[in-house]
Amino acid sequence: MLTAKIYVTLKPGVLDAQGDTVRSALETLGFEGLADVRVGKFMVLTLNGSTKEQATAQVDEMCRRLLANPVIEEYRFEIEEAAG
Amino acid sequence: MLTAKIYVTLKPGVLDAQGDTVRSALETLGFEGLADVRVGKFMVLTLNGSTKEQATAQVDEMCRRLLANPVIEEYRFEIEEAAG
Repeated sequence: MLTAKIYVTLKPGVLDAQGDTVRSALETLGFEGLADVRVGKFMVLTLNGSTKEQATAQVDEMCRRLLANPVIEEYRFEIEEAAG
Repeated sequence: MLTAKIYVTLKPGVLDAQGDTVRSALETLGFEGLADVRVGKFMVLTLNGSTKEQATAQVDEMCRRLLANPVIEEYRFEIEEAAG
């Protein structure tokens, strides 16, 4: 079993309204020194019965077709052997 | 400047409706061999003027107070020197 950890983030320059909201909320709570907050998605996929090479190609296609919006988002991922 | 990369995920055992939906969508697109999909949040905070120790304590408090729901979510984070 393989585990794919996928990180989807907004491209630099794309306005991150959710990140700005989180930043305001943190400042309201009294936290100081925040220069920037960006919010993205983190996905963990568990894959059966494929090699690391197959999984890499498959996950890349998943990201392009569904998991990330290539217009405004970028993604990266790591494939690992599942623990246990 | 320091960068905190924060990963917030549902605790194991907590039903992940968003993950199940993503899994169904991937299967509808023809992807096979998906054992599990879990969806979480990924946040990047840029912090001014604090040491790594201060930032670690501050980010841990941010997670406990705002960024993660400790009832159903767990979090981990890494503090790094910001590139550039």
